[in-house]
Amino acid sequence: MEANRVYNFNPGPAMQPLEILKEAQSELLNFQGTGESIIEISHRAKEFEAVLNQAKADIKELMGLGDDYEVLFLQGGASTQFAMVPMNYAVGGKKGAYVVSGSFAEKAYKEAEILGVGTIAATSKDGDFKHVPTQDEIKLDPAAAYLHICYNNTIYGTEYHYIPETGSVPLIADMSSDMLSRPVDFRKFSLIYAGAQKNLGPAGVTVVVGRKAFLENSPKTIPSMLRYAIHLDKNSLYNTPPAFCIYMVGKTAAWLKKQGGLAVMAERNAKKAKLLYDAIDNSGGFYRGHAEKDSRSFMNVTFRLPSEDLEKKFVDEAKAQSLCGVKGHRSVGGMRASIYNAMPYEGCERLAEFMEKFRKANG
Amino acid sequence: MEANRVYNFNPGPAMQPLEILKEAQSELLNFQGTGESIIEISHRAKEFEAVLNQAKADIKELMGLGDDYEVLFLQGGASTQFAMVPMNYAVGGKKGAYVVSGSFAEKAYKEAEILGVGTIAATSKDGDFKHVPTQDEIKLDPAAAYLHICYNNTIYGTEYHYIPETGSVPLIADMSSDMLSRPVDFRKFSLIYAGAQKNLGPAGVTVVVGRKAFLENSPKTIPSMLRYAIHLDKNSLYNTPPAFCIYMVGKTAAWLKKQGGLAVMAERNAKKAKLLYDAIDNSGGFYRGHAEKDSRSFMNVTFRLPSEDLEKKFVDEAKAQSLCGVKGHRSVGGMRASIYNAMPYEGCERLAEFMEKFRKANG
Repeated sequence: MEANRVYNFNPGPAMQPLEILKEAQSELLNFQGTGESIIEISHRAKEFEAVLNQAKADIKELMGLGDDYEVLFLQGGASTQFAMVPMNYAVGGKKGAYVVSGSFAEKAYKEAEILGVGTIAATSKDGDFKHVPTQDEIKLDPAAAYLHICYNNTIYGTEYHYIPETGSVPLIADMSSDMLSRPVDFRKFSLIYAGAQKNLGPAGVTVVVGRKAFLENSPKTIPSMLRYAIHLDKNSLYNTPPAFCIYMVGKTAAWLKKQGGLAVMAERNAKKAKLLYDAIDNSGGFYRGHAEKDSRSFMNVTFRLPSEDLEKKFVDEAKAQSLCGVKGHRSVGGMRASIYNAMPYEGCERLAEFMEKFRKANG
Repeated sequence: MEANRVYNFNPGPAMQPLEILKEAQSELLNFQGTGESIIEISHRAKEFEAVLNQAKADIKELMGLGDDYEVLFLQGGASTQFAMVPMNYAVGGKKGAYVVSGSFAEKAYKEAEILGVGTIAATSKDGDFKHVPTQDEIKLDPAAAYLHICYNNTIYGTEYHYIPETGSVPLIADMSSDMLSRPVDFRKFSLIYAGAQKNLGPAGVTVVVGRKAFLENSPKTIPSMLRYAIHLDKNSLYNTPPAFCIYMVGKTAAWLKKQGGLAVMAERNAKKAKLLYDAIDNSGGFYRGHAEKDSRSFMNVTFRLPSEDLEKKFVDEAKAQSLCGVKGHRSVGGMRASIYNAMPYEGCERLAEFMEKFRKANG
């Protein structure tokens, strides 16, 4: 870590690989000798189309997906996907089924409800979202238009450790906070989406990956910008795309390939998470994890301290040591350390050491 | 102009003020001593909220608007606004009225049509969109939900030189290609929007300016992300915003203030446009402007040459002189020089000189 930089444990926007930032900085006034910034260049220029197509190819390669899948770069974040999913698929009297495993999973369900097309297949709300519903808990109507899950629950610090079996019902996942953080059998999903600002790049682009045959199925009665089929047909260039953000996502995908791909990232991310979960588990109850052990997230580590006063002190003292953004979401309280792909191992080591010291001083 | 940079006459994404790009470059690794990039910093951080609020204040100051107006930073470009406008306002049996003055004006109308709520109040399509419909040509139903106009028609190179009187019908304008390029009595509009990538910053953020009382009027039956009221209520932070783009728009607004505001920009832009229109008008018919003189745009100068072969030659020779992106849209053909706020006077001078030389060599 360079002297003037901090470890940023915020849930997103989040840390970016420093070498990517440096690359972007060095070419900001003149992209590939075009005499223009990547911000200025036409989205119809061959240089930009090459950036977009390379980003798509790298993402598909990382995910192990072939020609039957396509990557789209959209806008509006996961929140817009919450609306697009039911508008595109919960049609013809069919309803969308939802597993409500946290705050964003519930928001997705509520957007379907606004349109009158949502049903709940499982929820862990009564258990304060401490666990991800199991296969047995999911009651899926085989006539459902799809099953929607939130693969990692950022606020509660839980993550799926299995892929729900849905029979012939298409599976859709919001992977905003764990996409490209570990290998998953992505072929089991018809549609996956993620706001970029956690593992993929800057806020302002939504990466959507879907089966082409599924993406083609948009009704013509909804606004053009909300139809997956339009964006598929136009290679994400139906209108002017968020060019700078796509360029940065492309750099991130290339960086992930250079690291060795998702298997290597999974190993690193598991080691990072273990440092923090060990600090919790070995604290004699001083730190109490929010998530049940078998639902623990590799991306967001949530825990409480013995009192709110100590929690405030923890946040302040951590910040003084350049360990920033560890305050949890108000709906859970306590701490949340978000440790996405770009968080170095040393950041987690430093935080784990701090946790240990803080416990000894205040326990 | 620095040696390795070019004059970019593309319609958007477009040139940015060089000093803004340099500023962004210098602080890309560490924003205001936070130890984080503007790309990495939390959108809930006080430093980011200050950026967002300053950008809003500067835009309102430039536009001469007070507390009864609000600025929103949304995503999805003007194309998403084409859908949001009718979804929010053409409700309760009311229809949205449209002046169809060009390609994007027509796209806006078509999005209302998809929802079954669009009517045409005037169109210049029969005249190949060479002029902006006059007040007399507009047949506005006083019961319309709104009148929607496209204030500058990028593809055809026409621009409004008056504000339509609409009585009690709210006036809505897509100002994607001329917002903040000259003073307008913005108070006559209930809602104005613009994709940033022409005069305001990088692609990826849509600047929406509206009367608060109008923005508040969103039905609760449409998706949350498409409701103006939500974004108004949450200060554009309902979900993670396109932070880098907002930051760049803020820099642009500050730059415009430093230049002297919109009156100064109008004067500069008029002088720039005059160079090119004079080159057309004094060419003895070699260059033929597409727009009728009283509808000419200050932002997009469109013209044809005697043959398509000469047009191709013009594009190639211009590019060899670092005058890039002058090729017109396929629906009009010929040339289009887009000369937004950040295009220096020298760029237009160079292009006008080139036009003169090219005419002499090929006329």
